[in-house]
Amino acid sequence: MRDITVLFISDSTAITAEKLGTSLLKQFDEIKIWPITIPFVDSMEKVHKAVEQINQIYTAQNTPPLVFCTLINPEFANILKQSNCQFFDLINTFLPQLEQSLALKAKQNIGKTHGIEDKSKYDHRISAIDFSLKADDGLASESYKEADIILVGVSRSGKTPTSIYLSIQYGLKVANYPLIEQDLDNYYLPQILRSHKNKLFGLSIDPEKLHKIRSHRRPGSRYASLTQCQQEVFMAENLFYNENIPFLKTSNTSIEEISSVIINSLRNKQKSPPV
Amino acid sequence: MRDITVLFISDSTAITAEKLGTSLLKQFDEIKIWPITIPFVDSMEKVHKAVEQINQIYTAQNTPPLVFCTLINPEFANILKQSNCQFFDLINTFLPQLEQSLALKAKQNIGKTHGIEDKSKYDHRISAIDFSLKADDGLASESYKEADIILVGVSRSGKTPTSIYLSIQYGLKVANYPLIEQDLDNYYLPQILRSHKNKLFGLSIDPEKLHKIRSHRRPGSRYASLTQCQQEVFMAENLFYNENIPFLKTSNTSIEEISSVIINSLRNKQKSPPV
Repeated sequence: MRDITVLFISDSTAITAEKLGTSLLKQFDEIKIWPITIPFVDSMEKVHKAVEQINQIYTAQNTPPLVFCTLINPEFANILKQSNCQFFDLINTFLPQLEQSLALKAKQNIGKTHGIEDKSKYDHRISAIDFSLKADDGLASESYKEADIILVGVSRSGKTPTSIYLSIQYGLKVANYPLIEQDLDNYYLPQILRSHKNKLFGLSIDPEKLHKIRSHRRPGSRYASLTQCQQEVFMAENLFYNENIPFLKTSNTSIEEISSVIINSLRNKQKSPPV
Repeated sequence: MRDITVLFISDSTAITAEKLGTSLLKQFDEIKIWPITIPFVDSMEKVHKAVEQINQIYTAQNTPPLVFCTLINPEFANILKQSNCQFFDLINTFLPQLEQSLALKAKQNIGKTHGIEDKSKYDHRISAIDFSLKADDGLASESYKEADIILVGVSRSGKTPTSIYLSIQYGLKVANYPLIEQDLDNYYLPQILRSHKNKLFGLSIDPEKLHKIRSHRRPGSRYASLTQCQQEVFMAENLFYNENIPFLKTSNTSIEEISSVIINSLRNKQKSPPV
């Protein structure tokens, strides 16, 4: 393994630079990455400080570090590029082609990607997080009329992290409702969910995995037993089929993927693009 | 304003394509974006379906849509590129330069960026979310020894969304503790926080903004009054100064930015990169 120092430099949080840079670096097996993130590089002073840091690393390691950069300001990017590094410009690489495609000139307005850009959109997202926290685990069911999505599934099927991720990432108000034995025994949707059927999305899970998760929580309990898990999952999936509720098995799926599937299922129900 | 249809296409969630594509498009004022996201394009069948959709849009609008693509598989990317679109390849654009910088050949291993890649890391993240939810608002203080970070601040200073964002995005166990009048009157840290001082990070807020937020919650209350808000914020910031706790004013700062500042403050306390 070869040690490689990689800097992610941005005028904002640098999350995009980290994500894209990491995806690219994962295509190489023989390297070990030492990441350094420098966010909020939005002044000449900070640019020069970053250059200094890059040059120090170069001197100490005798190798130019890699730099993945999402600085909008081309002057800043240009100064960074002159330092002792291998420079990957994730913004300016595409701007000329994009200017040509749109037949427009880029503004190079740094402010646009910095801070709380769209105040009302941001406030909406914060109140969506609030909503999702309050409407967790069957609580605040009187607020379901306000919800964008209501996740349903047996206990520990991944509803809570998915709800919160959807509100943080997409600004959606997401309630979640746990299907308990009593709901499942009835073979039909609990009354409280019936009037919001178009907002429901089901999460299911592999019974073995559910058994493991629940055993960790309450070892040896009936709640955690494999038989109980099998029965609950079987009945929940039956309910989803019978009631025509879209659902997803979450066992080998990350919350990002689950959320993405839900978002797309939601979008497909809504108005189509301007074709 | 000109309507532009933009597709974000990925073999994973497409969040990175959306973020980088949107940053680029924000550099142009005169356009209105109609976004379409196609995630999980990980088979030839799905590639052809995406091509079909692009060509349909082209036919209907008589303009090639923009496509921002993060497909790792170069064969898939190449087929997409042949469709009637303006193609921006966020991966393959950089791979040749990266191969040259590293003097290594890319593997083009699509599996690497798909799904739950690193199981134990993923499980760790999920349990971090669990932790942060349980240790919200001063609860579960017996678990503070397990916490990576403990956020402190007056009621409604943004602790909860920041805690949860930090656990979702970075897999950190983040507790949060509300400073109440009684804590503030004493002019020193509550006992429960004293033994975890190196984990503390303070959130503060503009008193006017706090007054607005609290008034929305409990209109006309003493809790929401401007005087009360001014006093609490003043005392909380004094406490942060006196106890040498790093803190941040959150009023015009997004949770992404707050989190990024906290992460960097935390990193600086830890071991330095391999220089």
